[in-house]
This record gives sequence, structure tokens and C-alpha cells, in this order.
Amino acid sequence: MDFKTYNEALDNLLKSAQIWDRVERIALSSALGRIVSSDVIASKNYPEFATAAMDGYACRFADLSSGKLRVVGAIPAGSDDKTSLKDKECVKTFTGSLLCEDADTLIPIENVTVENDLITINKPVNLGFALRQIGESYKKGDVLLKKGTKLGYSELALLAELGQSYVNVYIRPKVAVLSTGSEIVDIGEAPTHKAQIHSSNHIAIANMVSLLNCEAVILPVIKDDLELIKNTILNTLKSCDFLITTGGVSVGDFDFIRDILKSEFELVVNGAAIKPGRHIKIAKIGDKFIFALPGFPYSAMVTCALFFREFINKILNTNENYRFKAILDEDFTKKSNFEEFGAASVRNDNGVMKISTSTKKSGSSAIVSNLNNNAVLLNCKMDQTMLKKGQVVEYLVMM
Amino acid sequence: MDFKTYNEALDNLLKSAQIWDRVERIALSSALGRIVSSDVIASKNYPEFATAAMDGYACRFADLSSGKLRVVGAIPAGSDDKTSLKDKECVKTFTGSLLCEDADTLIPIENVTVENDLITINKPVNLGFALRQIGESYKKGDVLLKKGTKLGYSELALLAELGQSYVNVYIRPKVAVLSTGSEIVDIGEAPTHKAQIHSSNHIAIANMVSLLNCEAVILPVIKDDLELIKNTILNTLKSCDFLITTGGVSVGDFDFIRDILKSEFELVVNGAAIKPGRHIKIAKIGDKFIFALPGFPYSAMVTCALFFREFINKILNTNENYRFKAILDEDFTKKSNFEEFGAASVRNDNGVMKISTSTKKSGSSAIVSNLNNNAVLLNCKMDQTMLKKGQVVEYLVMM
Repeated sequence: MDFKTYNEALDNLLKSAQIWDRVERIALSSALGRIVSSDVIASKNYPEFATAAMDGYACRFADLSSGKLRVVGAIPAGSDDKTSLKDKECVKTFTGSLLCEDADTLIPIENVTVENDLITINKPVNLGFALRQIGESYKKGDVLLKKGTKLGYSELALLAELGQSYVNVYIRPKVAVLSTGSEIVDIGEAPTHKAQIHSSNHIAIANMVSLLNCEAVILPVIKDDLELIKNTILNTLKSCDFLITTGGVSVGDFDFIRDILKSEFELVVNGAAIKPGRHIKIAKIGDKFIFALPGFPYSAMVTCALFFREFINKILNTNENYRFKAILDEDFTKKSNFEEFGAASVRNDNGVMKISTSTKKSGSSAIVSNLNNNAVLLNCKMDQTMLKKGQVVEYLVMM
Repeated sequence: MDFKTYNEALDNLLKSAQIWDRVERIALSSALGRIVSSDVIASKNYPEFATAAMDGYACRFADLSSGKLRVVGAIPAGSDDKTSLKDKECVKTFTGSLLCEDADTLIPIENVTVENDLITINKPVNLGFALRQIGESYKKGDVLLKKGTKLGYSELALLAELGQSYVNVYIRPKVAVLSTGSEIVDIGEAPTHKAQIHSSNHIAIANMVSLLNCEAVILPVIKDDLELIKNTILNTLKSCDFLITTGGVSVGDFDFIRDILKSEFELVVNGAAIKPGRHIKIAKIGDKFIFALPGFPYSAMVTCALFFREFINKILNTNENYRFKAILDEDFTKKSNFEEFGAASVRNDNGVMKISTSTKKSGSSAIVSNLNNNAVLLNCKMDQTMLKKGQVVEYLVMM
């Protein structure tokens, strides 16, 4: 079998992906982690008016040299009192208060002595001191959040500051997750003999899908039965946008997913020269896609990141970067002629990123725990036969 | 006012914190991001029996030299067929299948030619090839997840593999968030005059709290009114474990939270020599804590990370590290005599972490957007007056 390279296979997938155009409006209080579906632009300067950045006395800078000022009023935060200043006057002003008219400087409480309605300036300040100027945070027309931005705690705070209580975000694609295999026992079931193992793939993939801003639907595990698999796939596509399956894509007699995808759908990816995951298949029908991942858990999780994540990243405009560089801790020898993605861990060593594979178990692609503890993937390219200790290498973060 | 250092203030807080002892049992399918409350230990070897890592023919290594083997059966994945081997025999075996008795090696499909019930070995393999050995993933008694581990996609997959369908996790502490200030208009309300601004603090803090494995409760915004604030605090503590307030902690005439904490509770932190946030106050009553953060959004978010996050990190045993090193892009001059935490961004430059503050706006601590885009905090210590371009500096990741 002649495999396409990872980049060729990925290009084929991304070329056939359509930008997501489904938008909903949700409350700010439940929008954490969601993706904004249009640019957010400042409709006014912020702050709109000069305000005090400290507790003190609003005054005219020119009057400070006189050494004493008369306190003619107070403007608590939230008051729109219209007090204005005459010569050598000041107004007591609090953090967040509007500045009174004519004032251009704030002299902090700590810099004065108060006696009745007179303050003595013990320590002068510069013109404009402790003022929050008009437009300090942003100017009218500034693009504050670009379409595709993920809403974190501070992006949400910004929307609240703008006066928004609802926000337009992409509807989360609904993604069904189907674990297949006659040896697989479903979650909450007990094995009945020694050839059975519990499914972990559907739990792994469903949680990855959730972290990628999709709504995951976990289907019941099914056995290697051609008709059952075919009917389940066709039925699932009625209610879900995308389907991710695991198992049944290799060269064995019971790898029915491979056969079904070839006969019923349009294959956009038919294997790739990667380890793990060379037997991955991706097919489409209309605007629905089926990602058929290998059955070993490590392979399934890695190919989910290599293909499904990139697909979602493209259709939701998130443009996130997952590739970074680090210095390799020890020699790494490739096991195949393919592009490899090996489990590794990174650490920040006095400002230099170091990567190591020695923290991970060697063995088959069935080892789930190799992706624990925020593991990353060490990327050894097609044209590299080994990576040397001390070399700058590329890695992919997972999620 | 004589401020304690950040480390002294934090020590005081953490000394009075009690380890969280409230545990619930939840379904694996809704446990993403939760914290396990006890060690997870392997109850058996995994895999328990040798299985095939590829599709091929299970055989005895010693027979491979004969060049031809007779196929005496097939063991699909999930079958516990008891076939055993005699001289020069093999059994067709699939990825994930149990190995038949007496077999010690798997010869892959790709390495043989099949004719009727005979296979010809075209390319021999080593002893034990393509087997997944007993205990390859883990051995009985291995500690697989330590108490305090955050459940990511692969940790959850591991629990599923172990046959768990439920998991013990810490009950999320219930944290009320109260934004105060007479100038503050609540989310979903319209300002009525120019001295009013929208609250962003409660949205910011509530989302930070959610990201820290707590359940956030957003209270309605209240004005600077001593009795109202006092009653709200006391009432909230009936239903919540912790309370985070913003505003009202400085030296102004309307800073009532400061007064209430001093009169009604036991102060464990009374300000700290930090910028932003020197007026932070933390008080306790029994095992409940009130975190009174400053009112400017940047100050509130930073002090939430500096104190509340460390507190939660301690009581939930998560032991996460938030401090890393990077090379500074440009000179940074401290604005105060305090320990400073300035907004900055980091990037991985060919394996070296670089940090820059020039991507951020200078101005007051009211600028919310300075924490957008995964901003970090550049840490300039008490004894440093400036940081030089090219120097290795410390930063804190936010969340």
C-alpha cells in the first residue's frame, strides 16, 4: 500500500472542509471556552471620560505650585456631579470617579495634609498624574476580538465591560464517537472472559472532542459486524455533523469500517505515512465527515489530534498553533520509514524548552498512559532517520 | 501602611488553609477537568494476557526457520478460543486478539505468502515480535494517578481501561463572586449617566474560579453601602464555601469592605507589597474565607491568581506549577518599590522562551484586555529595580 505523506493527507482533508457557518447567541455567563463567530469592535472610546485611578484631589496642575488648595466638593465613584473648579480649588475624588470639569491632574491622598477645607501639597505630581485618560483601554473602532477567538476569562471580562450580556459564538459541531471491536466491553459493563478488554477510546476521543469546542455524543460500543456497523454509521449521520470511529481500519479480515467507507462514501484520506496511525481513513458524504481512527488508544488519540483537531481548527477559524520547538534530551531512533509522533514530555529549563521521551514507556501503540501528564508528541519527519541529543526538534502539544 | 511581602502574605494564607476533605463519586463521562481525591492503583497487570499488536500469524519462533507453517485456526479479536500449537503450526491472529497457547511470536501478514492452509515466510522476525506482553502498559500495584491529578482526556481513558465507570473526585468548592461599587452597572443593565461603567470583574473572576475547579456563583452587583455589603457577605457565607469580592479595599471614604473585614472577621492577609493589588485583604471565619480583591479589573484578576489560585491549589492537592523562566525582550523598569506583576506575552522562539511587555498597553490597572491572548505575568521581585533585555526572568502563567 502506497501511503500519502501526512502533509498531503492533511491538505486533502482541509481542502474539502467547509467553513462553519452556524452561529448562536449565548449568555456571557456560560460562554467560557466558546469561539466568537464575528469580530468584536469597540463602539466607543474606553473609558469614555477621564476618571481617577486613585483616591485623591482633582485639581488644575497649574494651581499645584501655590502649595494649598481649597476643597470645594467631593465626587464619589458613580456620581455625575457637575462641580467645576475655580482658581486654587480642588474636589475630593475616588478611584473610578469621574474627574470634575477643568481638572487635569489628581493629587493622591498620601501626598497632602488636610486641615478643614484646605489641603497642603507635601509632594507635587506631574501633569495628568493618576488620571485614566479617555481611550486608555481602547479607541472607538479598535478590533478587540477577532473572529475565531476562544473566550477565556479576560476576553469575557472585556465583553462585559463593553456592555454585552450575550455574545455570538459558533454552534458547537455535534460529533458522535463510536468505538468498535469484538474484544471491546463498554463502559459500565463487566468482561465475561479473558479475551475482552474495556473500551477507553470512546472516552478519550469524546473528551478530546469536548476540548475542541464540539459537543460529543458517545455511542454504545459495537462488535465487528458489517451490517451493524454500516447501519450505525448511516443512522448516526442523521443526527450528528461528524462521526469519529475507532478500530476496523487495518488490513485484517474483520476490519469492516475500511470496507464500508470505501463502498458507501467518498474517501478523502486513505491512510498516511505516519506512525502511529497509518491506516487512518477519512470519508465524506455531503458536508458530513467520518474520521475512522485506528483502534489502539495511543494511535486513536494521536490521529484525532493530527487530523480532527486541524479540521476543527480550520472550520472554526481558530488558527491555533500546536507546533513548537525544544532541545532533545537523548537520541531518538525512528522505528519506521514513516513520519513519527512519539509520546514525550517537555519542561522549561531556565527558559529553554527541553523534551524527553525517556519519561514514556516504549512498547505498542496500546499504551494509554503515555499521553498522561500533558504529554506532547515528538515529531520525527519522513526524511529524518534519527534525532540527536541536543538537537532542536519539533513537537506538538496535545490538549 | 507597612505591607508584608507577597511571600509572607501568601504564607499566612496557606498556613490557615485546611485541606479539602469533601469527595463525590461521578460518572467518567462528565469528569473532564475534575481532580481525583485518592490515588488510583492498578489492580492487575495490563494487559493481563499476551495479545497481538498487529494482524498476522501466531507461531513458535523456533518453527520460523522451517520456512513454511500450517494454519490450524483463526482467533478473531474478542475470541477466547483455546487452540494450541503443534510443530510447524500457526494460528491466524488479529490486532487485539489473545495469543494462542504456546505461541511466542507473531509473523505479520505482510511478511508471508498464503497458499491454501500453508504460509511461506518471506521475511522472518525476532522472537516476541508484534506481541503486547503481559504488563506492557502497567503492572499490578503501580500508582497510575496520584491524588490531586486533574483528569484530562487520557487520564479518563486510563480509568475507562481499568474498568472504572465512576471516579472519586473532590466536590468543587462553591465560590460566590461579588462585584461592588457605586459606579458599577450590572451585566444586562443599561447605564443611566456618564459616571457609570459595566462590571467586568464578576464575569472575569467567576470564569477564573470555574477554571480552578470551583463552582462559581455570581451575585448581583451592589453599591458602596456599608450595611448592604455586610448583610450580603454574611448571607452569602451561609450557602458558599468561599467569597471573592472586588472593590472597596483601598483607603477611600467608601471602601467599606476593608472596614467590614476588619470588624467582623479574622484578617489573614492585610495588604501586600505588590503591584498591582497592594490593598488586597483576606479574612476568615471558621473554615470560610473571604478574598477581598481590588476593584480595578487587572488588579482583581492578578490577585485572584496570586492568592485564590494558590489557596485552591493547596487545598485540592493539585501542586501545579505556574512559574517559569524566559528571556526578556526589552528593558523593564519597575514603577513601584513593590514586587510587580506586569502583563506580558511569551513565545517559543526556536526552543527558547522569550517574554515581552511591549505587546501590552501601559496605563492604569483598569485595562482588562492586557490579559487577553493567554497573557502571562512578568515578575519583578522586591529587590530588583529593573530587568534588563536578554536577562532570564520569571513569569507566571495565568489560566
